[in-house]
Order: sequence, then structure tokens, then C-alpha cells
Amino acid sequence: MSVKDEDRRRFLALGAGLLSTTACTTTKPASESGAHMRPHGLRSPHEKVARVIRELTASPGTGSSRTPLQHLYGTITPSDLHYERHHAGVPAIDPLQHELLVHGLVEQPLTFSMAALRRFPSVSRTCFLECSGNVIGDLRGNPPPTVQDSHGLLSCTEWTGVSLRMVLEEARLKPEAKWLIAEGADASRMARSIPVEKALDDALLVYGQNGEALRPEQGYPLRLILPGFEGNMNVKWLDRLLVTDQPAMSVKETANYTELLPSGKAEVLTFVMEARSVITSPSGGQQVLNGFNEITGLAWTGLGKITKVEVSTDNGKTWQVAALQEPILDKSVVRFRLPWEWKGEETIIQSRCTDESGYVQPSRDEFIALRGINAGYHYNGIKCWQVKADGHVVAV
Amino acid sequence: MSVKDEDRRRFLALGAGLLSTTACTTTKPASESGAHMRPHGLRSPHEKVARVIRELTASPGTGSSRTPLQHLYGTITPSDLHYERHHAGVPAIDPLQHELLVHGLVEQPLTFSMAALRRFPSVSRTCFLECSGNVIGDLRGNPPPTVQDSHGLLSCTEWTGVSLRMVLEEARLKPEAKWLIAEGADASRMARSIPVEKALDDALLVYGQNGEALRPEQGYPLRLILPGFEGNMNVKWLDRLLVTDQPAMSVKETANYTELLPSGKAEVLTFVMEARSVITSPSGGQQVLNGFNEITGLAWTGLGKITKVEVSTDNGKTWQVAALQEPILDKSVVRFRLPWEWKGEETIIQSRCTDESGYVQPSRDEFIALRGINAGYHYNGIKCWQVKADGHVVAV
Repeated sequence: MSVKDEDRRRFLALGAGLLSTTACTTTKPASESGAHMRPHGLRSPHEKVARVIRELTASPGTGSSRTPLQHLYGTITPSDLHYERHHAGVPAIDPLQHELLVHGLVEQPLTFSMAALRRFPSVSRTCFLECSGNVIGDLRGNPPPTVQDSHGLLSCTEWTGVSLRMVLEEARLKPEAKWLIAEGADASRMARSIPVEKALDDALLVYGQNGEALRPEQGYPLRLILPGFEGNMNVKWLDRLLVTDQPAMSVKETANYTELLPSGKAEVLTFVMEARSVITSPSGGQQVLNGFNEITGLAWTGLGKITKVEVSTDNGKTWQVAALQEPILDKSVVRFRLPWEWKGEETIIQSRCTDESGYVQPSRDEFIALRGINAGYHYNGIKCWQVKADGHVVAV
Repeated sequence: MSVKDEDRRRFLALGAGLLSTTACTTTKPASESGAHMRPHGLRSPHEKVARVIRELTASPGTGSSRTPLQHLYGTITPSDLHYERHHAGVPAIDPLQHELLVHGLVEQPLTFSMAALRRFPSVSRTCFLECSGNVIGDLRGNPPPTVQDSHGLLSCTEWTGVSLRMVLEEARLKPEAKWLIAEGADASRMARSIPVEKALDDALLVYGQNGEALRPEQGYPLRLILPGFEGNMNVKWLDRLLVTDQPAMSVKETANYTELLPSGKAEVLTFVMEARSVITSPSGGQQVLNGFNEITGLAWTGLGKITKVEVSTDNGKTWQVAALQEPILDKSVVRFRLPWEWKGEETIIQSRCTDESGYVQPSRDEFIALRGINAGYHYNGIKCWQVKADGHVVAV
């Protein structure tokens, strides 16, 4: 990203302090000797990043917690800030006792201990995970105040594990095998139906998250990862894969995670998270300053790679192409950035992305025209932030 | 990475449990409702990863802590497990009070608050950081027992910050500017001399580490990152850049961080970390199992990208090309993997890497022939692990 001379002069005018040459010839005084080292580092007490939790009182651990996207840099979500969506809390699992059962339409039913799975060839890949219910307040016309509230059911991780295809080749699928019912070891026995094509494509059984073991709330010791598919299908605490010839039509595929269309019919078994993007800074609750501001945010798609992000700073009248931070990875988030000079005008800023399938993120109106207002899941409309005349940013 | 049929049969024989079809038709019983959500997740109590600390008793916080490479997956080092090397402990800095002074051979001396730096266009990049004293026990003929002990002064991070070049363009370097003396706000006022060419190339002033703010022990709120240069030069708690026409020849450039050659002369101002690799699993203290084992480890170079990693499982008689996990990034670690069948023989396993400059990691003998045994820093010889007849792995 190149910055023009006039931009630089703006940085100077607004941020940096000019010194006379004589004023800065003395060395700053040294401070006192610092703290000891620790086996695990802790955040600075000046940093307040945390997940925001919404838990149902009736059922311990049921609900969601959201990633503080407005405070994050780059693309990786720190593991202890990864969003959560649980249906019966976080089970405490002893990895020595945990087993994965693979059975049903296979030639050889098998169980795998964690030690057995770890002996398979391993693979690492970075991809996003997003709850299909993310951003639903915006569809309903009730945009929450911050990007953590509206988009915080999104995170991005370097996962490590084994190829599900390789594990299934051990059990040998029968010709009539079309679906896998993946089930977790939480008290809700969360179960989802996975098309066998996805299982044999890029699905992973993961035990590693950002360089270390999975965190308990991300499925320790074993989680299914289906890159680009809605979060709920990436079953946590995975202990059972039942191979069948049809989907289970479980409660999470009929009562929830379906989309009511304007026709009155509901779409079921919708898997892929289509392209979306959001400006994370400046975003709701933050403050725009006079002069230069960097607009930055995230874009992602379940259909491969993001190819373009455009940003409008004038309520959609004109759009500029944002810079994309390399490397741009398949089914991962990409960080976009655009320099912007704000002159005190009240305005709307927004981003829209395009992916390699050619899909363009729709506006809210376009989404509603196609799928109505009751879809409940998979809303990916363009997110608008209003900049007030005093620089305060609010969700609209 | 493809796995042959016979490999798969080995996985089966060794890891997975065969079930009769009738034995696995019942659903596993559900467990009790799980734990509540938390603002920050914690590791499973079954996971014991931690840094190992070696602190000098005379000076609080002076010494090092090492990353548990043998327990890590993928490429990212969790921020709370990043290695440390401090010369006067970890200072507690209020980011609202922190300033960066840029002065010396510049047209316009400047100070930057953290808020001012954060208004510059930002950039993210992943790169390794390694203490130039890493692996020194191996050079001296005293290889420590584990890879954490021998190679643990190595970590890899997605950093976010601003281009140092852009900041220097604000201050406008004078024609005679050749060096930057970078100094930190710890009690030791750690200072190193940076060639202006590097400062204008890919140097960064970072405030972000793996998606969030820098950890205190990594230089919060501001650190210099010089991709590929020895760790010590990546000055933490950075508060001063003095532009000069010659290097400072500070205590860390004369008494330490120099390499005594066989001639009796010492090399000084050696910056680039040359190519190296190490097998992290199986490694010292771990156990090889009969049959299939995955050999995996890390390779990295300060001279660009790793192009090849070869592994020998027969004490160097033959070498096989390992698979490299994509994406392969500039001056970052790359994860390599090779399937290996162990038949109970006592042997030596080792890895060697090649980078895009054509540089090949030397054996210990080759290193010593060139640079002697007293170098003290920048040792990058091939690391050997001995596999005993009982499968136990020991450092040699």
C-alpha cells in the first residue's frame, strides 16, 4: 500500500510530535528492573479484550460467546478468544478415555483412540469458522451496537489434525454410503449430517488449534472441521461417525439451522457459508478522527478465496478497491485495508467482497428480495456503519 | 502426502480397534451438562505445555524461557508460549505514556505516541524469531535432552504493525544516515545497531501478535521486527531510534552476540539467521513405536523461503525429501512431514534444509570446520536424534 506525500503530512499534523533538534539529544532515563519470567505469559493489564457471553439461564453453558473483532489485528483469532456456540455446555473429557467410533455403512467398523489418530499423517490448514446464525440482528433490522455483537460468531484458526478421507479409507465405505452422521460427546449429543463428498474432500479431524492442543470449548480432544461449512456442522468433542444412505434430519437440521423462505417453505441442509465482509475499524462504538484513518476489516467465503474487497465511504455512491493482506488462503479470512481521509462529514462506510466463484456479497435489500426476512441463518448482507458529525460510529 | 495401502494396514494393526458390526449399533450414552462459558478460555487440565525458564538469580527476569516445540502443531507459536530472552526483566509499561523518539541524522526529529503509530497504515506478516544463541549446547558437544532445551529459543508469529520505512520517511533521513540505534525501555536499555538498508526494507514497528496486542514479555506496547535477523536485534519495548552514520558498538555488539573464529578474531554485527531445521517429533524424551511413525519438524531461514527439507532415518546414509506444509512463507517456519516405518533398529534420524538462496544447512562437522567451536552464536548444524532399540529417543 503506498501512501502519498499529502497523506504523510496528515499523519504528522495529527499524530506525531515535532521536536527541535536540541531537545532530543539526551538519552531517556532507564526504568527499574522488570518482572520475572513465567511458564505462560499473561496479557498486559491495560488490554481488556474478552469474549461477550450470552448464556441461557435454564441450561448451563448453552448459548454463545463472541470474538472481539474490533480489537483484533491480522487474521488469527487467539485461541482463548475463539467464539463459542454450545448446546449443553463444555464437557470435561479425558483424552486417554476418548474414542472415535466409525460404523454404519462401512466394511470394517472401527474405533480410534486419540493416540491412534495421532499416528496418522497430520496436516495443518488455516480456515475460518462461523456460526450460520451470525449477523442475524442486522437481517431483522436490529443491528447491535458493536461488530463483536453483530459479527463476533466468526473466528479464524490454524488447525492441525488428520484427513477424514484417510480415516474413512481404513473403515472402507460401502457403495451406498452417502452421508455421515457426526455426533459429539456433549450432553446434547449434537449431531449433524455431512455429505460424503465433503467428508472425502477437505474434511479434517483436528486435535490442534493455533499450534497447540484444541481448547476444551473448541471440542477437546477432537473436532470435525469442514472448511467453509456452517459452524454447527464442525462437530465438537467428536466421538461418533455413523455412515448412512440418508441424512439424519436431526433436531439441529429441522427445528434449527433451517431458513424460512418468503414462499413459506424452509431450506434445509444448507451448508456453505457464502462470501461476506465487515469493516472492523472504525466500527460501532469507535471514533473516527479528522484527517487520515485506516479502514480495515475482514472478508471470507466458503467458496474458496476472496478475490476483491471494495469499500465505500460515501454511502454507496462510489467504491474503492481495498488492499488485501497476503497470503490469501482458501476458505480463510483475509484482512483488507484502505486509507481514508475524513473531513468531518456525516456518512456511511461499508464493504463488499467478491470471491473466486464470482459471487458478490449482496446488500441487505438484495438479500431480502431473494430470501426474505425470516431466513434466520446464512445472512451475509453488506454491513453499514454510520459516522456521525462528531466522528462517533454507530451501527445502522 | 499420499499414504500407500501397506501404510494404512499398519495404522490399523497398531492404532485402531476392530469392531464386529453388531457391537457398535448402540448410541453412546450422553454425559452430564457441561461447564459454563468464560470470557477467556483455558487449556484442558490434561495439557501440560509450558515454557522452561532459566533465570539468573542475581538479576530478576534476566535469562531465557524456551518454547515447548515438541508439543506444538502447525507453525504458529501460541503467544503465551513464545520464547523469551531478557536482560533486565519485563517492564510494566502504560501504553498511554509510551513514546517512540526518532532523532539523530534526520531533518525532523519526532516523537510518536502509540495512538499516532496506530493511525499509520498497518501491515501483517508471519515470521520466525530466534535467539542467535539457540542450539549452542549442540555446538559445544553438550546436546540437552529435549528439543525444547536445544531449539526452544525459536518461535513463529503473525505480527501486525507499521512499516518502519514509512515512519522514517516522516522524519526524513539525512544523506549520511547509515545506521539506526534501536533502544528499549527495559532497565538494561538494550540497544542494537540496525543497518539503514534493513530499516528501509521489511522492518516493522509492531503492536500486534497473533491477532491481539503484543504480550508484555514480547515488548508491549511496541517492538521492532527485523524479519530473518537475530532475535536480540528485534528490540522490545522500543522507545528510541537514533539515526547515525556508524554502529553504536554497544555492549550487546562487542561483549556478547559476537562469534569467536578459529583465527582468534571475532565476527561482529552478524545479523541474518541462516537456514536450519529440526525434527520435533519424534525427538528427545519421546518414544518411537513399532511400524508407522510420522516424522515432523520445522525448517526456517533468514534468507527467504525454505525450498527443500530432507530427512535421513539411517544415520545419514540415505535422504528422503519431506513434504512441506503450505503456505510456505518468506522468513517464516515451515512444517515438514515424512511417513516412516520403524522396525526396531537402533538408528539416527536427522533433517537438513535448503533455502531459496541455495544455502544448505551444514552438518556439525562442516560448521566447525568453517567457524570453529567457540562461535557462541549462529550455530545451525544438522540436529541428530538417536532412536534406541527400545524406541526411546535421545539427543546425540
